[in-house]
Amino acid sequence: MTNTETTRTEEYDVVVLGGGAVGENVADRAVQGGLTAVIVEHELLGGECSYWACMPSKALLRSAAALRAARAVRGAAEAVTGDLDVQAVLARRDSFTNNWSDAGQVAWATGAGIDLLRGHGRISGTREVTVHTPDGGTVVLRARQAVAIATGSDAYIPDIEGLREARPWTSRDATSVKEVPASLVIIGGGVVAAEMATAYAGFGTRVTLISRGALLAGMEPFAGERVTAALRENGVDLRLQTEPSRVARTDHGFAIETSAGDTVEAEQLLVAAGRAPRSVDIGLETIGLRPGTWLDTDDTLLVPGFDWLYAVGDINHRALLTHQGKYQARAAGDVIVARAIGRDVSDARWGAHVASADHGAVPQVTFTDPEVASVGLTAEAAIAAGHRVRAVDYDLGWVAGASLHADGYRGQARLVVDEDRSVVLGATFVGPDVAELLQAATVAIVGEVPLDRLWHAVPAYPTVNEIWLRLLETYGRESAIPKNRERADLTPVD
Amino acid sequence: MTNTETTRTEEYDVVVLGGGAVGENVADRAVQGGLTAVIVEHELLGGECSYWACMPSKALLRSAAALRAARAVRGAAEAVTGDLDVQAVLARRDSFTNNWSDAGQVAWATGAGIDLLRGHGRISGTREVTVHTPDGGTVVLRARQAVAIATGSDAYIPDIEGLREARPWTSRDATSVKEVPASLVIIGGGVVAAEMATAYAGFGTRVTLISRGALLAGMEPFAGERVTAALRENGVDLRLQTEPSRVARTDHGFAIETSAGDTVEAEQLLVAAGRAPRSVDIGLETIGLRPGTWLDTDDTLLVPGFDWLYAVGDINHRALLTHQGKYQARAAGDVIVARAIGRDVSDARWGAHVASADHGAVPQVTFTDPEVASVGLTAEAAIAAGHRVRAVDYDLGWVAGASLHADGYRGQARLVVDEDRSVVLGATFVGPDVAELLQAATVAIVGEVPLDRLWHAVPAYPTVNEIWLRLLETYGRESAIPKNRERADLTPVD
Repeated sequence: MTNTETTRTEEYDVVVLGGGAVGENVADRAVQGGLTAVIVEHELLGGECSYWACMPSKALLRSAAALRAARAVRGAAEAVTGDLDVQAVLARRDSFTNNWSDAGQVAWATGAGIDLLRGHGRISGTREVTVHTPDGGTVVLRARQAVAIATGSDAYIPDIEGLREARPWTSRDATSVKEVPASLVIIGGGVVAAEMATAYAGFGTRVTLISRGALLAGMEPFAGERVTAALRENGVDLRLQTEPSRVARTDHGFAIETSAGDTVEAEQLLVAAGRAPRSVDIGLETIGLRPGTWLDTDDTLLVPGFDWLYAVGDINHRALLTHQGKYQARAAGDVIVARAIGRDVSDARWGAHVASADHGAVPQVTFTDPEVASVGLTAEAAIAAGHRVRAVDYDLGWVAGASLHADGYRGQARLVVDEDRSVVLGATFVGPDVAELLQAATVAIVGEVPLDRLWHAVPAYPTVNEIWLRLLETYGRESAIPKNRERADLTPVD
Repeated sequence: MTNTETTRTEEYDVVVLGGGAVGENVADRAVQGGLTAVIVEHELLGGECSYWACMPSKALLRSAAALRAARAVRGAAEAVTGDLDVQAVLARRDSFTNNWSDAGQVAWATGAGIDLLRGHGRISGTREVTVHTPDGGTVVLRARQAVAIATGSDAYIPDIEGLREARPWTSRDATSVKEVPASLVIIGGGVVAAEMATAYAGFGTRVTLISRGALLAGMEPFAGERVTAALRENGVDLRLQTEPSRVARTDHGFAIETSAGDTVEAEQLLVAAGRAPRSVDIGLETIGLRPGTWLDTDDTLLVPGFDWLYAVGDINHRALLTHQGKYQARAAGDVIVARAIGRDVSDARWGAHVASADHGAVPQVTFTDPEVASVGLTAEAAIAAGHRVRAVDYDLGWVAGASLHADGYRGQARLVVDEDRSVVLGATFVGPDVAELLQAATVAIVGEVPLDRLWHAVPAYPTVNEIWLRLLETYGRESAIPKNRERADLTPVD
């Protein structure tokens, strides 16, 4: 209160701007490597994922998914007589966000030897961050080794007449909802839009989704198609290839005029049209970078032109996913240590200090109904990247394990195979409860395990993972012969 | 009817004795390779797995598992007001066994160009099988290239006083049950015993399980321990380290005296004490082999001392699992073709014509509550095999994805790491719905993907597969540095 004039200077090896999961991991790796680190955070320590994204959104979706799974199996279905208890779902969500308290995260950071400075941090020069603290004080942080920007991203608000003024919901509001609206319009067609359409439709909200393109564009086309069909079955009014042209507040909520000439009215409006970098007001201009832009990095997450500035997580726009940001954070934290103490830098492809997987091995699960689990390149992206590819498709519903899992199971799987190297470049699974199928594909892609070896990775019967056998069989049994032995002479049986 | 005297001779490239999934796959690969093949089967085409094992047992277990999963999530739990509908479960099981009709399988075989000869086949000399058909006829089958024995295994009935005479249930009866008994004693402690205890306890049957050892011996100890604890919580009377000493029929069912001096009475008795080879009456003596024994093979499934006799599936005792038998069948069918037409034999380790994964990469899912998914070597087995190992343990309940999946999720995971080669030798997951986690471990083991590469196989957040990150972190971040680069000089950042 009386501190408004205080300015102090502190020195750390590493200053981390932004205390989400990514920033926490950079700091943790640095401290575990023997350096000192401070995290600057003006909101909750733990960040977007913990309080307004992954955790609450999945908590909003899980109960309905579990109920759906039980309803899909005779013998169990008969026992499900009630409906989803929305209040219980919201209460459960609250427990996963710790009621938006970061006390647990603060205790973790303290235990991990990481300092936390609450306040708004801005880069104020080379190796320097100036923080305005909530009590009005100013702290100048000097970074002996590195500053890591891990400020993440914000919801992007597209330039639609009246939209910003109407103060729509963003993902934060949708995931932290306390009272479910009777009707909701969602602008957007990506993961957040599709997941929130699924969640709110499950809550009984009348949902309209307006997307200028197809749903889940960028993924294999059948992913968006199947989610589109399922959302429509569940009563969601999907308006694809449609643009909102004007938004206004009404007495009862919102009115959205569309490019089709219609007006959609709803109690609430969610904008889920992508993300914008949180770099507007972090002092980038003081070091010659442009505020409001995504930051380029090399594979060690170092910003080109600097030997002390790292950009980690969403802010570098390599892969806007918590797990991928944490992955980058481990590499960045470790390489900061290696460079600080003169240890070997492991920056060859797949080394410890590079985020190689960001290029072509990024896994993502979309918790819609059906779920979409994808990793690596789509067939289209693989072709565009110059690979000679073959896409192998199989109907998940034909897999014995899937039909045991749920009556009338419907799903689809695709493997994208590099024909020259006989390795998997991408995999997509769409269907109920496919989320946990993904890791095998990620290991196959990252491990560059050739098809002939994958034939020996026998899926347990009867699990849904039998899809692996079916995909290989669909590709053709000739792929079981190791390529470097095709020309070998007959070998005596040992 | 009037055919009793008929004897005819037929010639095929390949004669397959036994038409389970294994025999079907041998024949299918042979036919796809351009050979002719006949399957001899005296029961249902499709075999044990389709009618009396994997399919019906999993069908008996799945509905309860789905219901349990819904009950474990607030928001969904409130909607589950009823109990498992046992009659609906049995009806669902019937649909998976096609009411024990093999018409669909016969149609498949016909479409695949495989001949089917119904009857009891016995080897009657070199490359010869004599079949007694149901109409009293005799068919002598001459095999130009190979005879494949794929007769499988039967329930083993241990030598306990009165047991055989009491005509207890075996796995076939337990999986094809029409009326659920009020009480059931299970003799055995392996997968079938544990799964059937889980299923019947879920049906409301009073279950007593008598095992001379621990439950699920041979797996990581914590697997059996957790299943033991859960079965006890669910009211199963587990008598471990106990031997049945005498069995008798009573007016109400069975009385089983145990080595502890107690007598357990129950309406029904299931013996699930292992498997015996189905080789007693298949003519092995005519070619100098001993009836009633398991058959040795090399890795191409060829029986030593013969150039025409293959033993595939349970009968060779390499890995008594349908998926592993089918895997062997693909290798065997293909190598029979290769040898027949003089094509290269791919029999180096991990080749197309060898079942290399039988040695140290066999996956298995036990559909108990909690589920047990394991692949490769246990820590104990790895040490016994001479590996320098480190076992890495992590509590699955601490994984964010698991706690989202079910409130109060309890589970355990272990990775067995080869310290010399820095690869995974074994993995075990125990917990609700862990079945689909297994394939990633199988790919890692079979692909011999080193730990430093596995760090780049980022699990999607928040899924249960995040266990992979936690296991690697528990092992230690130093494992992220590629071993062959540890001594490399500083490399310039590109």
